[in-house]
Order: sequence, then structure tokens, then C-alpha cells
Amino acid sequence: MGLRYQEKMTLPFDMVDVQQELKIPSFLAYCLALSGRQSELLGRGDKEIFEQYGLVWVVTDYEVAITRLPRYQETITIETEAISYNKFFCYRIFCIYDEEGDLLIKILAYFVLIDFETRRVTPVPEELIAPYQAEKVKKVARASKYRSLEQAIEQERKVGYWDIDLNGHVNNSKYLEWMYESLGYEFLTSHRLTYFQIKYVKEIGPEASVTTRVVQEEESSLHEIWSSGQLHAQGMMKWKRQDDKGN
Amino acid sequence: MGLRYQEKMTLPFDMVDVQQELKIPSFLAYCLALSGRQSELLGRGDKEIFEQYGLVWVVTDYEVAITRLPRYQETITIETEAISYNKFFCYRIFCIYDEEGDLLIKILAYFVLIDFETRRVTPVPEELIAPYQAEKVKKVARASKYRSLEQAIEQERKVGYWDIDLNGHVNNSKYLEWMYESLGYEFLTSHRLTYFQIKYVKEIGPEASVTTRVVQEEESSLHEIWSSGQLHAQGMMKWKRQDDKGN
Repeated sequence: MGLRYQEKMTLPFDMVDVQQELKIPSFLAYCLALSGRQSELLGRGDKEIFEQYGLVWVVTDYEVAITRLPRYQETITIETEAISYNKFFCYRIFCIYDEEGDLLIKILAYFVLIDFETRRVTPVPEELIAPYQAEKVKKVARASKYRSLEQAIEQERKVGYWDIDLNGHVNNSKYLEWMYESLGYEFLTSHRLTYFQIKYVKEIGPEASVTTRVVQEEESSLHEIWSSGQLHAQGMMKWKRQDDKGN
Repeated sequence: MGLRYQEKMTLPFDMVDVQQELKIPSFLAYCLALSGRQSELLGRGDKEIFEQYGLVWVVTDYEVAITRLPRYQETITIETEAISYNKFFCYRIFCIYDEEGDLLIKILAYFVLIDFETRRVTPVPEELIAPYQAEKVKKVARASKYRSLEQAIEQERKVGYWDIDLNGHVNNSKYLEWMYESLGYEFLTSHRLTYFQIKYVKEIGPEASVTTRVVQEEESSLHEIWSSGQLHAQGMMKWKRQDDKGN
């Protein structure tokens, strides 16, 4: 069990979508900033990690289960905990609760530390991770596998200025926005997302041309993001029709 | 003088751009949500206004002067005040201060009240506006005029799912993002914005095709947003090269 950190918030106008529900993609970025506030309290802010070790945190995978999306002006509690780590991977969860204490969303994030100069994955330094009180595990919990997509529907887009974050690459939340958007407005307003997983394979730089690929199946959609002939991200999303109350 | 309301915040990762500076377009939406919190404290939240009067607030214009954009992890104070109103328009300012109390950004926003059913502008009810203690003025402070653009550079884009807010139209902040993006990555990373004004002429719905038009002049850029043969927004931005310290 790692140290827990939590914040409460009431969902403002700019954090909800046309259906008055939490915008999940940008909320992932919000949660990362929140875990950054825990790290700062523990003396392990991004700045310290960079200055002392020359390292930066990178998310490689998300796995997200959604029971219900919180709504405009609803008050939620976001609780995060670095649960465990091994030689290369650190595992963090974010649990989002409503005011009754019911779990709405559970996010599992896989992190690695990258050497800023070489861009290579670095073993996790013990003294860097110690303050989080996360459990050291031998087993490498590998993220889900993805099958490669055939006969996918493709769409092109150009990376814009606002897609790039302060690391100089497309922000992780944008890949997920693009995966959603490949499904179209009618589908998105008539279905609800119950689960998704995403794997970040390779960074995308400014002004790149990007191809989103999607295969829609009965209750799921499979996604790939390509650029310059290379695979940059893979995703899988599970959907229910909005009038279907069952899980 | 109206009642003032303020909040402090430290700029997180997800509110800054590739230059580690405040993302102005999404910050406009943030400020609106903040003024919404003042309205709720005064018993005039969006929900109350809608339920009691059938009215919704709409921003028609912004005029924004920027001395300096706050940076990643900088702590700022956002102070807002409904300064004055006349028969149809309400004027609100947002002042953003750094920790030394220096003014970084001043935002003037023009609001009108729209009848939700008819979509027509409605005279401001006295009892609705009273709690803000704003000054009643006779003069209609008209927003700046814009000249129509000839020989503009045009770009097409499709309105995406995430561009639409809970009102069912493109969020105001997106128009500004598009105006920026029509200038290109190289220009945006080598210039700093010192002033802009934007006029919202007409709403844009889901899945619309949009044309951004831009004319670049020596120290300014002029912008229009068109859709289905109609003008939807106009903008003017003033720029300095980043190595130019003077104003």
C-alpha cells in the first residue's frame, strides 16, 4: 500500500462535454497534474527529478474502467496512490468517487522514467521512489496486448499548436481525443464508454501529419494512431448504447 | 464599482503550452467558470437564471491586454468584477496578477442575456443584476469594429466532438484556438501576443465545416471564422517578436 493523496472538486463548465459529463481525455491530464502535487509534497516534483537525476516520468499505458461519468457541478473526490513498482515500471491508480463514496472511475496508469538526454528507459532509483511507500514487486505487469488492425477506417489530421505540451510532443490526452473523434458525433452522443485502454508507443512532434485508424465491432472499438509510416499508439474502447442500463 | 471576487491558483501542467506559458484560449473558459462561482455565491448561478428567467448568458466580445503570460507553476490571482451594464450589455473584467501584485493580463468581456427558446437578446432584468452591484450606465460601449478581410489565407477544418460545450455549440475558446493555429507553429513559437479582441457573431453547431481566414500584417493579424457562407467570428491580434523586449 502506497501513500494516498486526494483532492475534492466540483466539475466546472470547462471540464464537461456536450452531454454535461466529465471530459475524460483532458481529465487524464488533470489527474497527472494532481499526482504531480502529491510528488511535490513528497519532495519528488518533476523539477527535482529532472535536476537531481536528469529523468522525466512518461506514461506508457492507461487502463480505465468507468461505472458512471460525473456530471456538471457534481462534486467528486480524486484519490491517487502509487501502488507498486518493479525494475522499470511504476503503477499508479486514481479512484474517482461521488459524494456518496461510490466509485465512478478507476484509472490504472503505467509509468516509466526516461533519461532526458538519451530518451531511454532507466531503472527506477530506489531512493527516488521510497517516499511514495509503494510496494516493490518482481513481476512486470505487462499491459494488455493489441491486435493489429486490418480494413480500418482512416482519417488524416495535422498536429496543431495546442496539441503540444511543455515536453514538446503531443500531449497524451490528445491521442485519446482523436480516438474518440474517429467514431463520429452521432455514435458518441448515443453511446457511453464503460472501459478503455491505451498504449503509447512513440511520441509525436509538432506539425506532424497523423492518421487515425478505427475498427468498430459490436460493443467495442479498436484504434491506432500512425504518423510517418510508424505506429504511435493503440487503443481499445468498450461501449454500451445510452439507453442500455446493464453492464 | 461592482463586487469583486477572486481566486488564487498555481498553474498546473495541463494549463500551459509548449512554451510553458498559460494557454490563453482555454483560460478564457476557466475564467467564465470562475465568474460562475461568483454568480452562485450571489444566488445568480446559470441554473437559477435559466430556471427563473429562461435566460442564458452569452459572451459577445473579448478585449484582452497581455503584459506577460504567467508560467508553469507560477501562482496567480484572478480577480473579477461585473463593472457596469446598460439595457442590453453587461461588462465584466478579469484582472490576473502575479505574486508581486503586478497586473499580467486584463480581460474585458461583453455579455448579453439570451432567451433560451427564441435565441433573442433580452433586456437585463434589474433584479437579476442587482446583487453584483455593478454601475448602471446609459452609454452602450460598443466593441471595436473590424474591417472585412480581402486576400486572406484560408484553411478548412471540421468541428470535432470536443469542440462542442454543454450549450450544444462550439465553445468560445475554440474560435480563438483556431485563430492562433491559422498563424502556424513557427510564428507562434517566435512571437508573443500583447493584445487581442474577438467578436462572436453567430454560433457554430456540431460537425460543421469551418473556414479560418487570416491576414498577417507587420505587428498584427486579422482573423475571420466562416461556416456555411456566413461570418461567425472576427478577431484582431497584436504581436511582438519574442526577442523584442519593448512594448
